[in-house]
Amino acid sequence: MFKIAVVGATGYTGLELVRILISHPVAEVSIATSESYKGKKFSQVFPGFKGLCDLELEDFDASKIVDECDIAFVCLPHGASMEKTKKLYDKGIRVIDLSGDFRFQDVNVYEKWYGIKHSLSDLAREAVFGLPEIFRESISQARLVANPGCYVTSVVLPLYPLISEGIVSSFPVIADCKSGVTGAGRKPSQKLHYPECNESFMAYSVEGHRHNPEMEEALLRATGVETQILFIPHLIPMNRGILSTLYIDVDKDVEWSDIRSIYDKYYKEEPFIRLCEKGVFPSTKDVRGTNFCDIGWEVRKERNKLVIVSVIDNLVKGASGQAVQNMNIMLGLDESVGLLDAPLWI
Amino acid sequence: MFKIAVVGATGYTGLELVRILISHPVAEVSIATSESYKGKKFSQVFPGFKGLCDLELEDFDASKIVDECDIAFVCLPHGASMEKTKKLYDKGIRVIDLSGDFRFQDVNVYEKWYGIKHSLSDLAREAVFGLPEIFRESISQARLVANPGCYVTSVVLPLYPLISEGIVSSFPVIADCKSGVTGAGRKPSQKLHYPECNESFMAYSVEGHRHNPEMEEALLRATGVETQILFIPHLIPMNRGILSTLYIDVDKDVEWSDIRSIYDKYYKEEPFIRLCEKGVFPSTKDVRGTNFCDIGWEVRKERNKLVIVSVIDNLVKGASGQAVQNMNIMLGLDESVGLLDAPLWI
Amino acid sequence: MFKIAVVGATGYTGLELVRILISHPVAEVSIATSESYKGKKFSQVFPGFKGLCDLELEDFDASKIVDECDIAFVCLPHGASMEKTKKLYDKGIRVIDLSGDFRFQDVNVYEKWYGIKHSLSDLAREAVFGLPEIFRESISQARLVANPGCYVTSVVLPLYPLISEGIVSSFPVIADCKSGVTGAGRKPSQKLHYPECNESFMAYSVEGHRHNPEMEEALLRATGVETQILFIPHLIPMNRGILSTLYIDVDKDVEWSDIRSIYDKYYKEEPFIRLCEKGVFPSTKDVRGTNFCDIGWEVRKERNKLVIVSVIDNLVKGASGQAVQNMNIMLGLDESVGLLDAPLWI
Amino acid sequence: MFKIAVVGATGYTGLELVRILISHPVAEVSIATSESYKGKKFSQVFPGFKGLCDLELEDFDASKIVDECDIAFVCLPHGASMEKTKKLYDKGIRVIDLSGDFRFQDVNVYEKWYGIKHSLSDLAREAVFGLPEIFRESISQARLVANPGCYVTSVVLPLYPLISEGIVSSFPVIADCKSGVTGAGRKPSQKLHYPECNESFMAYSVEGHRHNPEMEEALLRATGVETQILFIPHLIPMNRGILSTLYIDVDKDVEWSDIRSIYDKYYKEEPFIRLCEKGVFPSTKDVRGTNFCDIGWEVRKERNKLVIVSVIDNLVKGASGQAVQNMNIMLGLDESVGLLDAPLWI
Repeated sequence: MFKIAVVGATGYTGLELVRILISHPVAEVSIATSESYKGKKFSQVFPGFKGLCDLELEDFDASKIVDECDIAFVCLPHGASMEKTKKLYDKGIRVIDLSGDFRFQDVNVYEKWYGIKHSLSDLAREAVFGLPEIFRESISQARLVANPGCYVTSVVLPLYPLISEGIVSSFPVIADCKSGVTGAGRKPSQKLHYPECNESFMAYSVEGHRHNPEMEEALLRATGVETQILFIPHLIPMNRGILSTLYIDVDKDVEWSDIRSIYDKYYKEEPFIRLCEKGVFPSTKDVRGTNFCDIGWEVRKERNKLVIVSVIDNLVKGASGQAVQNMNIMLGLDESVGLLDAPLWI
Repeated sequence: MFKIAVVGATGYTGLELVRILISHPVAEVSIATSESYKGKKFSQVFPGFKGLCDLELEDFDASKIVDECDIAFVCLPHGASMEKTKKLYDKGIRVIDLSGDFRFQDVNVYEKWYGIKHSLSDLAREAVFGLPEIFRESISQARLVANPGCYVTSVVLPLYPLISEGIVSSFPVIADCKSGVTGAGRKPSQKLHYPECNESFMAYSVEGHRHNPEMEEALLRATGVETQILFIPHLIPMNRGILSTLYIDVDKDVEWSDIRSIYDKYYKEEPFIRLCEKGVFPSTKDVRGTNFCDIGWEVRKERNKLVIVSVIDNLVKGASGQAVQNMNIMLGLDESVGLLDAPLWI
Repeated sequence: MFKIAVVGATGYTGLELVRILISHPVAEVSIATSESYKGKKFSQVFPGFKGLCDLELEDFDASKIVDECDIAFVCLPHGASMEKTKKLYDKGIRVIDLSGDFRFQDVNVYEKWYGIKHSLSDLAREAVFGLPEIFRESISQARLVANPGCYVTSVVLPLYPLISEGIVSSFPVIADCKSGVTGAGRKPSQKLHYPECNESFMAYSVEGHRHNPEMEEALLRATGVETQILFIPHLIPMNRGILSTLYIDVDKDVEWSDIRSIYDKYYKEEPFIRLCEKGVFPSTKDVRGTNFCDIGWEVRKERNKLVIVSVIDNLVKGASGQAVQNMNIMLGLDESVGLLDAPLWI
Repeated sequence: MFKIAVVGATGYTGLELVRILISHPVAEVSIATSESYKGKKFSQVFPGFKGLCDLELEDFDASKIVDECDIAFVCLPHGASMEKTKKLYDKGIRVIDLSGDFRFQDVNVYEKWYGIKHSLSDLAREAVFGLPEIFRESISQARLVANPGCYVTSVVLPLYPLISEGIVSSFPVIADCKSGVTGAGRKPSQKLHYPECNESFMAYSVEGHRHNPEMEEALLRATGVETQILFIPHLIPMNRGILSTLYIDVDKDVEWSDIRSIYDKYYKEEPFIRLCEKGVFPSTKDVRGTNFCDIGWEVRKERNKLVIVSVIDNLVKGASGQAVQNMNIMLGLDESVGLLDAPLWI
């Protein structure tokens, strides 16, 4: 059994990692840290996990993690992640960081969008962007993986093959994205208070959201092409799931089947990408609880636009599931081990 | 008291008309028809209306309606509306039709998108498009008002001033629209079955939706400009509300305040249009149960795009509230009578 | 126009009072206080109220309220209400307090259940319990009305006639009550964080809830009978509504129609109590946004039990609507003025 | 690999069986039947299952099932199940029936409550009631297992030890039960139409529900004691989960710890029953997607009542998960194989 440390186990991405790893056949959580709940059992904080994960939550102790574990996930808020990731890295354990702290190679971009000083530019440059469908090779050797943002995953996966093949005729691509509320994290706030969130739909960060530059940088690293995305996020009154609708300029003669051919070329063998038949579009429930990214599309020829609809579970393929996929690669396991459960469709 | 007939009172737009008219000070429903429930009281079908509307539901009888009522609302599905509207019209009562049957002046467009033969092209040409903010004058004299589609209202209201002022630099405008489930009507179906709708988000009619040509025709009638809209609807797991996100090409030098000036010019005196301050964007809950259309926007200069967010309650400003607004105009009343209740914000 | 002060206007009961009074024909909010948001407009805190209530939120100032207003609603949390209610009362304005601070005549009971010292026992004894169907006469003369708890209203209204008529053969009555989340107030917390509340159902305060002694005291004041209620509250993942299921021991020969006769005797003329026909049971949506209490029942003769189902909107008949009903009585108005809008059934 | 047939694979219990068996290490669905969708792939009906279950749905063919499979689940509506279960049984394959058709040993009771003629009284008498915690031994040998009703499971599991130990001082026990909407099945109807179900809570079958006699019969078979339950079901606006609140008369001197001792005696080794600590009560989210039954309780001494709160996932422990648990027992496997995934807590 591989031994796993989850740093920050009581936020939503930490919780979801624990959930996924409980079913993993050759990896198990052996250290779970939490500042707020230390001394309590994980299953006292989340009683649904009684009998499944009764680990005692402990303080962060880099030495102990390095001594006892094979790999560490850092599930802290951005800013808080930086220093602890560095400590773990320096002691030699391989780290998958789920925050935004190491997703930008140029820390100036990070500092601009996160409003925080970044003192670890070397580490930022070394970190591998953890999108396995694109950076699998580097991930397998990485000492530090920066797990992608949820919106980023849902936008970059459908765009990467199209940009690589030069099918996008002009930029910006419009990315109108909608997310369930777990994407906003576990911290209570007025905006996320049940009665104010429920039965209402809103846009946010219309003036610009951190995942916008992250999308563009990921696409640049993946394809070498400077792109422009105009990304607007929205909040759906439900727990899980992101649906991204992309509006892409294409030439007049592009057909549905051309897109299919491109996707087949890039993704035919991918275990977690599923392509829809013509006329079929995915719902977020199709991927609830799973690591899949489902993609459907239509060419609206009268408008010279390709419209793409992609869905992921923001906590799985958009966070902890993708992190486990990265872990599987880093440990030399079959990439899909522990990640092929069926969706909780209803 | 003005006497009102509601033809098709047990669908959602009929129900909502009854709800709104219960609070109207000088109009009251005196005839409510229903094929499926005739002989029952309205309050037996909807027990929440006990003591508020105990009318007996009756068969459609054009003569009776014309004899007893001042105005008639037709709340039937498209196709079913045509013939009954015609009968009422021919007998001389003024009619507000909430279906799509008379929204297109060219019945060929109707026939193409609805897949139904339209035998009343004269009436279609005569019908006034019931968007008061644009066609108020004609509505006041109209014998037949075609009440607009819900999505159409949410898209045309924010676009009309911008197109009139020539601020849109190229087409298509992208209209990424999201609607609560009541927009799909009262008829049960697998897709709208609670467990399959709940906690999931989906796009639909990606290949083209009837409201797309309706938007373009309304804008043409309003501005004389041939436009192109690329409209994609989505289904939100909640009951009420439409949020439309519009992506519009504008010139480099357009500022937030330019848009504000245009909107002020057109909408300053409008009782049901509310403009957001800079940095504020509306949620659907802001208009729940009301006839307001709230509009917020941002110029994303680095992308040369104006992003607009508009919200309405699909059953009120998107249907029955707008119908009552039209009725008020036709009856020479203050346009906002009975329509200024506060939102059920939570 | 009567001038109204709302002390604590930005919690849910304050917000709901403002909502209801916007439609009231002869009363209007002229002072709205808030500690957290003072200096802001009400409509900046709740943008859905733009154009409907643009009052500036101000500090609590008893003298100003007494000078300018006819009646004051205190919508503060328990404990916080006490002192301000006292100040207003002492200066001579009539007060309706929506907290629990003056609902118990014996402050020892209050202190036991609320864990707070109560220094105003005289005022507590003077306060009239604001359930108009029972205490209408006293309310009309009251200087201080203690508006009942939401659960209490939903349980006491169906029980009061039955206990008065001696039809309950033994105690305790079981009151299994379920409430939407707005009942828990506006303050964010982990338990009420959207993702943890949504799609889940729970019981709480199983060991005993404050509304339990309040129910018993209200019934004692109403009927002179010492009763026992066993009350267990539950949280429903939705915004509004309480449904209470009551299990009552009755004699073998009690029939559905006997209960009907009793209810008719007490409630036939009540504007806000609606009795269901045999075989019909109310849903919370039947009363959403309204001041009604709907009651259905069945006698399960094989078990010697009468089962009652009552529903209210916890924010209306369970709080602010009932408060306005009390205000109407105190001001000598028709009790139902401004309170007869139809439910937002969907 | 054991080969499994799912008869009626496109209803919710069939769908859930497929979902659970996808993760089962030594059993796999090899035949899935459906009348409505035959010829289609399972993953065309449920696109979320693409790549996970692409079986072609076929007509029911008893011979083929018997030839190719080790065990058959019948997931048809009551009435429809009878004949097909009989055919399978007669050909010799072991059957787990998820309908109500074989849950009553006395078919007269069945006929009274289901309003359907039952022509297979021998089979009904032979069928083993599939509640493993009570009837494990018989299940292991059974040729036909009648899988219990969802409400029944949530009520009988907490009651069985208490009745066995004689701690219930008088009957009826009150069972106030609340269920998510999937419990009502997959067939669209007005009542289950999203907008009419959403944001509302209701009681139903107040006059008597089929699961009431089933509870009493199960308890009689389990304990030999004639009991009385007064069961009232309610519909929660959410997908999954049952929470049952039980009100039980107990003697004055019964303590929390007495109940704990009893539960420990019966359930300490049970893999799917989890007991809450004092002061803790389960939420339905604690068991979402799992086969657990979590039980919390409190003694309200001032009322001489024991209050129990139990939760299950109605589709798992309340249906398909329990069916797989029965299958594991029948196949001689570890009872919890494939059933220990963590809950989808958010």
